[in-house]
Amino acid sequence: MGDFNQSVILEAVRHAVDGRSRIELAQVTGLSAQTVTNITRRLLDEGLIREAGRTISGPGKPRVMLRLVEESRYAVGVHLDPAVTTFVLLDLAGEVVRRSSLVTPSEVPARIVDVLAVRIDELIDASGVPRDRIAGVGVAAPGPLDAARGTVIDPPKLPGWHRVALREDLAAATGFPVVLEKDTTAAAVGELWTRRGPSDDSFVFLYLGTGVGAAVVRDGEAVRGSTRNLGEIGHIVVDPDGPRCACGSRGCVDVVCTPEAIVARAEHRGILALDRPDGDRAALDASFSDLCARAAAGDAEAAALLREEAAHLATLTLVLTDLLDVDRVVFGGPFWTRLADTALPEIGARLERSSATRAVRTLPVQSTVVGDDVGAVGAACVVLDSMLTPRTSDLLLGR
Amino acid sequence: MGDFNQSVILEAVRHAVDGRSRIELAQVTGLSAQTVTNITRRLLDEGLIREAGRTISGPGKPRVMLRLVEESRYAVGVHLDPAVTTFVLLDLAGEVVRRSSLVTPSEVPARIVDVLAVRIDELIDASGVPRDRIAGVGVAAPGPLDAARGTVIDPPKLPGWHRVALREDLAAATGFPVVLEKDTTAAAVGELWTRRGPSDDSFVFLYLGTGVGAAVVRDGEAVRGSTRNLGEIGHIVVDPDGPRCACGSRGCVDVVCTPEAIVARAEHRGILALDRPDGDRAALDASFSDLCARAAAGDAEAAALLREEAAHLATLTLVLTDLLDVDRVVFGGPFWTRLADTALPEIGARLERSSATRAVRTLPVQSTVVGDDVGAVGAACVVLDSMLTPRTSDLLLGR
Repeated sequence: MGDFNQSVILEAVRHAVDGRSRIELAQVTGLSAQTVTNITRRLLDEGLIREAGRTISGPGKPRVMLRLVEESRYAVGVHLDPAVTTFVLLDLAGEVVRRSSLVTPSEVPARIVDVLAVRIDELIDASGVPRDRIAGVGVAAPGPLDAARGTVIDPPKLPGWHRVALREDLAAATGFPVVLEKDTTAAAVGELWTRRGPSDDSFVFLYLGTGVGAAVVRDGEAVRGSTRNLGEIGHIVVDPDGPRCACGSRGCVDVVCTPEAIVARAEHRGILALDRPDGDRAALDASFSDLCARAAAGDAEAAALLREEAAHLATLTLVLTDLLDVDRVVFGGPFWTRLADTALPEIGARLERSSATRAVRTLPVQSTVVGDDVGAVGAACVVLDSMLTPRTSDLLLGR
Repeated sequence: MGDFNQSVILEAVRHAVDGRSRIELAQVTGLSAQTVTNITRRLLDEGLIREAGRTISGPGKPRVMLRLVEESRYAVGVHLDPAVTTFVLLDLAGEVVRRSSLVTPSEVPARIVDVLAVRIDELIDASGVPRDRIAGVGVAAPGPLDAARGTVIDPPKLPGWHRVALREDLAAATGFPVVLEKDTTAAAVGELWTRRGPSDDSFVFLYLGTGVGAAVVRDGEAVRGSTRNLGEIGHIVVDPDGPRCACGSRGCVDVVCTPEAIVARAEHRGILALDRPDGDRAALDASFSDLCARAAAGDAEAAALLREEAAHLATLTLVLTDLLDVDRVVFGGPFWTRLADTALPEIGARLERSSATRAVRTLPVQSTVVGDDVGAVGAACVVLDSMLTPRTSDLLLGR
């Protein structure tokens, strides 16, 4: 699979809904007819593409159409969120074939990697997909990461995880190649795979999980940064009147926009009861749902609090779009879904009113098309990407 | 000059201090020996390169070295800063051959473009460079810009300028191709031209002029963003206890880090006298110098204020580097020079202490190698770039 032109051809076949003929492939890739013939023969032999009927276009012989064989290769995606670890199995078209989840242990078990490996095995077994069709495992984890070592660096919300040689150990335990990716970057890759935009597509992806992070896509590709840690936004101030942050400032994203911060504020104002067990992530999730349900049911104080939160997200979005100059903004992550109805219009209106480029364009604000599993789906897409896209083929360990 | 391979070869010759042989050019560009021979013949005919002696390397014939003819082409750079407009003439090697400056009129004269055109003519005449060797004029202006129309959009510090069709009118008035670039992006291009880093060089450039702006370089190229307005950072909060900003927040870069804001704070605290004429940019500049001189001479209050300012710039730098994940930070602009001694160590120490990636790398903080004229120099480099670099050749109007 290591061949550059082969990746180019597979990518071109993948993006054509109705398949492509060899002549079209030569046209869109710029490769010679002979090269296209040789490579497609190899791909047919490997079962990655198939011949799918003939079309007639103009005079001359009918053309044989080539299509991706979705079930020829799969990838596993694991999203290590501090609250819930999600597992998905994706086929070569990027469709979720199977999923499962696990409450992330708050203390790192000695053999956590074995726990993950067992869950991955169970996922694959339950799907009935033969193991030799699994291209690899993608793991999405909160940043910052040590990309060289394949570990997470002291993530404040995953205590103990920095001691885990995640990539190497998981590769050894599963026998699959493993790639470690920042969760927000993975989410952006998942979005790119699922809603293919123009080749110069650019957006900022804002991920609302246990923490809040960003990723950037430019020219249709995730921008990873020089240490693959692009998108750390926890200390951007969104509320100068907000609470103190450990960094010494006030009103940072980390102490204003996280679900923990929002629920704590609701409790402080008496909108929610103060009986939530400390550090219990499931209880936090339930409280957050409770707050959103109250707002939706007409509780004026709950609704006001969510509007404040929307305003803070709008401030954050404005800072990011003014700096990054992208075409659109995409929100996602498990906590986003419950905020979207309140936040989307507020953020859109704020950009319309205050964006530095408002005189020359409007900036669409959207929810991800992938849904709450976007981190795990994205992690699997990173594996498929590294298989199909020559540029990212160096990301996978163990190939 | 429109040929892609020709640009590739010129670029390869430019970066070789001692010139390059045709065989080396074929090696570094991947072009065939025949193509290199054809293109270098054309470049020799046009006078852009010359043969410069022979070198012996191993057995075989001595190789003829080819070098750039620095004086074969020139570019004009104009930096429209709200305080001072600077004009430079650069040769093909990026060296400043001639410079001049003009206090930027606070009211836009009806025929401002004619004023600029006259100054450009004077600059060229004084240099003795024949007009047919001028490749074009680059104009660096404060953002945001309307790249499609070639105008500046309502820059708060250049009142009236948004009515000026800068690019078209200046092209008509001078007879040269004109490119309009955001001042911060131009500065980053100037830095790239002058201190050529590795091909994957990445940095954020922080420009301290009348306003404060940023530019980003990735993979050795300026990232311009989808509307060519990347780098608007005026409303990033760097001091939650700072003054109110027109945007509704508090302590934004625009009301904390600009020279106007710093001098106003010094006046408010009694460090500087309150006799500065309102809106007088030369007086502002003098007051800023006065403040820095007092700090250097041991005035404790002046020094404390500059240290506070350094801390705010450190906060800004931290936000930008955590988000952008670049390799280094470069500061420049006319007001930076006077702050550098105080600010450089403070910013470096802060990144060391608090950067999200401190566990995996150190982030060097540097002053630009180009000096105070980096905006104007960079604007001229954008013209040379669009002549030499295939990627940016669409920026120049009128070619």
